[in-house]
Amino acid sequence: MTAARNRIFTQTPSGIGRPNSDDSAPPLDALAGAPLLLSAIRSPADLARFSLDDLKNLAEEIRYVLCRLSETRSVHFASNLGVVELAIALHATFDFTHDRLIWDTGHQCYPHKLLTGRFAQFETMRTFGGLMGYPNPEESPYDLFMTGHAGCSVGSAVGITVADSLLRGGEDRHTFAVIGDGALASGTVFEAFNHAGGLRQNVTIILNDNKMSICRRVGGLARYLDRLRMAKSYLRFKESVHRLVDKMPNEGFGTGQLMSRIKTAVKAGFLGGMLFEEFGLRYIGPIDGHDIALLQKSLRQVRAYREPTLLHVLTEKGHGFRAAELDPSRYHAPSPKAVSRPEIGEPAPDADKANTEKAADTTGEAPHASQPVLPVTSGKRTFSCLAREAIFRLMKDDRRFCVITAAMTQGNMLEPIRSAFPDRFFDVGICESHAVVFAAGLARAGMRPIVDIYSTFLQRAYDHIFQEVSLQNLPVIFMIDRAGVVGADGPTHHGVFDLAYLRPFPNIDILAPALADELEPMLRWAAEQKGPVALRYPRQTAPDSVASSTPIRRGRADLVRPGADGAIVAAGAFVEETLAAAQTLAGSRKLDLGVINARFIKPLDRQTILDPLRRGGFLVTVEDGMLAGGFGSAVLEAACDEHLDTTRLTRLGIGDQYVPHGTRRELLRLLEIDAEGIAAACAALASGTDGERSR
Amino acid sequence: MTAARNRIFTQTPSGIGRPNSDDSAPPLDALAGAPLLLSAIRSPADLARFSLDDLKNLAEEIRYVLCRLSETRSVHFASNLGVVELAIALHATFDFTHDRLIWDTGHQCYPHKLLTGRFAQFETMRTFGGLMGYPNPEESPYDLFMTGHAGCSVGSAVGITVADSLLRGGEDRHTFAVIGDGALASGTVFEAFNHAGGLRQNVTIILNDNKMSICRRVGGLARYLDRLRMAKSYLRFKESVHRLVDKMPNEGFGTGQLMSRIKTAVKAGFLGGMLFEEFGLRYIGPIDGHDIALLQKSLRQVRAYREPTLLHVLTEKGHGFRAAELDPSRYHAPSPKAVSRPEIGEPAPDADKANTEKAADTTGEAPHASQPVLPVTSGKRTFSCLAREAIFRLMKDDRRFCVITAAMTQGNMLEPIRSAFPDRFFDVGICESHAVVFAAGLARAGMRPIVDIYSTFLQRAYDHIFQEVSLQNLPVIFMIDRAGVVGADGPTHHGVFDLAYLRPFPNIDILAPALADELEPMLRWAAEQKGPVALRYPRQTAPDSVASSTPIRRGRADLVRPGADGAIVAAGAFVEETLAAAQTLAGSRKLDLGVINARFIKPLDRQTILDPLRRGGFLVTVEDGMLAGGFGSAVLEAACDEHLDTTRLTRLGIGDQYVPHGTRRELLRLLEIDAEGIAAACAALASGTDGERSR
Repeated sequence: MTAARNRIFTQTPSGIGRPNSDDSAPPLDALAGAPLLLSAIRSPADLARFSLDDLKNLAEEIRYVLCRLSETRSVHFASNLGVVELAIALHATFDFTHDRLIWDTGHQCYPHKLLTGRFAQFETMRTFGGLMGYPNPEESPYDLFMTGHAGCSVGSAVGITVADSLLRGGEDRHTFAVIGDGALASGTVFEAFNHAGGLRQNVTIILNDNKMSICRRVGGLARYLDRLRMAKSYLRFKESVHRLVDKMPNEGFGTGQLMSRIKTAVKAGFLGGMLFEEFGLRYIGPIDGHDIALLQKSLRQVRAYREPTLLHVLTEKGHGFRAAELDPSRYHAPSPKAVSRPEIGEPAPDADKANTEKAADTTGEAPHASQPVLPVTSGKRTFSCLAREAIFRLMKDDRRFCVITAAMTQGNMLEPIRSAFPDRFFDVGICESHAVVFAAGLARAGMRPIVDIYSTFLQRAYDHIFQEVSLQNLPVIFMIDRAGVVGADGPTHHGVFDLAYLRPFPNIDILAPALADELEPMLRWAAEQKGPVALRYPRQTAPDSVASSTPIRRGRADLVRPGADGAIVAAGAFVEETLAAAQTLAGSRKLDLGVINARFIKPLDRQTILDPLRRGGFLVTVEDGMLAGGFGSAVLEAACDEHLDTTRLTRLGIGDQYVPHGTRRELLRLLEIDAEGIAAACAALASGTDGERSR
Repeated sequence: MTAARNRIFTQTPSGIGRPNSDDSAPPLDALAGAPLLLSAIRSPADLARFSLDDLKNLAEEIRYVLCRLSETRSVHFASNLGVVELAIALHATFDFTHDRLIWDTGHQCYPHKLLTGRFAQFETMRTFGGLMGYPNPEESPYDLFMTGHAGCSVGSAVGITVADSLLRGGEDRHTFAVIGDGALASGTVFEAFNHAGGLRQNVTIILNDNKMSICRRVGGLARYLDRLRMAKSYLRFKESVHRLVDKMPNEGFGTGQLMSRIKTAVKAGFLGGMLFEEFGLRYIGPIDGHDIALLQKSLRQVRAYREPTLLHVLTEKGHGFRAAELDPSRYHAPSPKAVSRPEIGEPAPDADKANTEKAADTTGEAPHASQPVLPVTSGKRTFSCLAREAIFRLMKDDRRFCVITAAMTQGNMLEPIRSAFPDRFFDVGICESHAVVFAAGLARAGMRPIVDIYSTFLQRAYDHIFQEVSLQNLPVIFMIDRAGVVGADGPTHHGVFDLAYLRPFPNIDILAPALADELEPMLRWAAEQKGPVALRYPRQTAPDSVASSTPIRRGRADLVRPGADGAIVAAGAFVEETLAAAQTLAGSRKLDLGVINARFIKPLDRQTILDPLRRGGFLVTVEDGMLAGGFGSAVLEAACDEHLDTTRLTRLGIGDQYVPHGTRRELLRLLEIDAEGIAAACAALASGTDGERSR
């Protein structure tokens, strides 16, 4: 490829790349402001004046800035290194105030952000109040959609294309969707292909094929792309075959049908891309996605077409950074080695990663199925880590259990399970809907599937949870990771709707572990049920047990601390915060507040939770989810059903708003559901000064 | 095709077919029990003993029974006529207590139900307490899933196949998914293809291609299937090409890659089905789906394969019933001509249909765009009809407005809009997710899209409503038809989750018209907003206005009738019921109850709705949706935020259960949200004897 043309960044002892031809470079701090080309760009239109050499140098600068950023914090890294040249070529060729550009999934938008006026704020990336790690229309008119959930770019691009044609038919506007090969498997993409294939306008889908979604890709489609990749030939040759075929007459060769078949055969055999051609898209490629000149040429050519087109671009995830090229999964969103101190309650993602790697090291190759090795972890563990261990033991004990995930093997720390139980581990790619339908099929035939997916992405399977699992009452276990406010990814990634969307479905029990030693008993309990069960837990270190905890029993809460004046009841990992609030109030205001760990969101422990109301005390509910229809509403509904007085009930959680990005700790403070916020709400309620917090 | 082999059913003066070779047949009533072969079947295993002639006669009997049933009530008709031979061939060839069979979408399961022990109960089809119009595991072990939402059969079949392999690896079990060409476009199908294509086991997808989903199919995929259909050739010839290609050596022809390309070219040119082959499925077909012997032979052959296979079967929707063959859309679920009297509040679907047809007749060809013709309707109209008229006028006035639906053009009565505004009408097929993503794209580029989809199917777009519309705050209007309990289709079709799932999304206003003259003003109001708005309305006749109604203003309810003792507040079309309840109680119990039409579910009119609680009166909320997180919860949350006493608040709606099928009237009675139920709840609340209704 073109790597040799660029300076290569290699791994340095600090773990982060810098130009290897330039080891005597000044310390990184001193380099602030050094990228001269980047800082000279006022608008992407400036790129049109750049020479090819300038553009290549610009690519190096962008890579350098990306490396510097990844030294300071965990950011999406390898995917951004992969699209540096593509972003440059797009902005150097088109004016995206007129034409349209959508980055699917969006975590690969950093070069695009650097080129569209956000270099000066780049250091604030993914920090509270700073730039988002995803496209954000509020940051720039060059970001058309806030993306994050994969696969929507093609449909959006089709919509924009059709609207332009209806409203601005005379203008020559062009829409591009850049989608990775991982997101390509998402069903909504094929729905949009179906639509695009029927268009007579040009909408261009740029398939950014780096042979990787976030983790290894799977299925027939991946094999298909591999074949295309291997069949790589020269664009010019392909173009002439295309032209030749297009010129072939339809008559004079017997029936038009025969000719059509011959054309199809020629295209299939020599051009590749039949899958896309069958949908009605013109297929071009694959071409080298790190060759700026070739990219520009191909893009100009594609723009001239009057039909929907798929341009297949081959990139290397982590391109230009040797370590990331070799292990792009690991560098999807690496943590800087020099994480000073993880915030309390905030997991060091590196720790997760280290555990994964340690396990992989100790297990080596997939161990013999009869003797799977449990990954060794010590000290404080995240809920994800505890979930992995609990699932591991369950699968070891009972071969009916299996795991389904949707391209979250790394994120959910499931690598050791994949290694230990390869035949009972299913990563279906970025296809959450299918993950749930597939699990229902497994359950119907006697397996006990565990669907392990982030809360926010499980939204893709809403209707499938309804029809395939809840309605059929099948014993599928949902391990809903990253529930609640998640952190630096922001609004597209917070898992704040799950309680509201799961509660109305009959048959599903919903649990939330609060403490480290609750997760495995909850999973074991779920494993014994005849119907579906959901466990949801946040992305954080699991707090240690605070007291001798009671066994898990259906619909039973855990009374952590009794109180005469009322209680704070929380759904999930808020025991530290609620206990701290209770202690504060015991000292400062002589209030004797109990603390209840709800454990079950459904069915609710009415006996325990409503007890303070029955005794004329007050009750404060805490959750890091939407208040509309959430856990507090469940408590309120239960109180209403019993005709209890709810004037002394306050619900804490997320009002009618989207939550920005920031650390989980920062966001809980912002939402006033940290210890201080909870104490303040209790104090206000006790003194009757409580306003309308949650309107 | 093979139609000539069967007796042809033609339309008789009564509008329903009977054998035209048998006009002197006894009256239909006298024929009860006449199907001799059907009544002789104790289990599908009996079919193995039938001769081919017996099976053909059985097909005629099934057709006859289907025709008789459709005389008595509205049932899915044409689709069932189309799969008679396929159902027979499947059950005659395999034992589905051992092998597995899933009917996708499921409305074509009637022949399957007749063959699996449900002939005796067939007359109860789609009636309250009777057989469901969809597969139902509670009815029969031959129904593996309750289906209804399209596209899940392939993923379920993959799940079952994998589970069988893990748990019962030694057994030779086989799984079949039968999916129509309409459902094929659904994204989840392609997600499952991707998975299936990676399997080494055989799972068989039977593509039941009748060239029609519920309405005209659209997009690149439809064109592709048309090409395959035209390229129909002989199975035997195709098989030999397949064998020939498989035998070709991979070496000796230069690189293996070249050989692989030649094979691909041969297959593409002469076999068709490359789209499926590219996913890794073996493609067989197309074959005649009305030829029982050919079907049996092909099925046996397919079963021998050790790889995932797609068998492409061509059927005629409405096969054997001439009128339905000619107009299968109309006969998708026709109403019997002799509908005696539509129940009050229950629309005669025929009336809908008649309006559609009348409009089509008067408009004829698509009129000139500058002079679209409004369909003429008179008398009581359904909400769907009112929605169509309101949308029509809006689109006539402003060319930014456009309509997107997902294979519900007929169901939502949108044909005249399609005719009048062909360039601004988009039926994207059974792809609700894409419908919403596409609408967001349109909105981003300046159009004002109206997404017109049933409540239950909009669930497929849950995550897309979240990310593409709510999060971006784009001005998309959702016209949510068939909200609430829907009728004879049952649990898969009730639209009872929408209020609970939409409420937590920021930015979306949610309205529910209660009266005929509210729908258009609400749509006009929505059209002026800068963000998304949802209107949800049930499948019923819209009640006339009961008083001079006030203009639509954001977050304002309509006080229909004041009351000193309290109020009944309803979300949606319950004004008749609530007024009747109030009048009953005024007479029998001297209670002076107000009636409030909420109009806005979000934002809620706290001033008006909470007024009775502020004055110490009582409040009863009414909705035909899930109580968990629904409208009543919204009222309760508002009351809680204001620290009002909610001991005198009762919420009526659907508890934690699935609602069976029946007429809307029967179901509202069952749920105790008809006039009597509401009155009884108010009386109990007033007398303090209210139990816990909604637990």
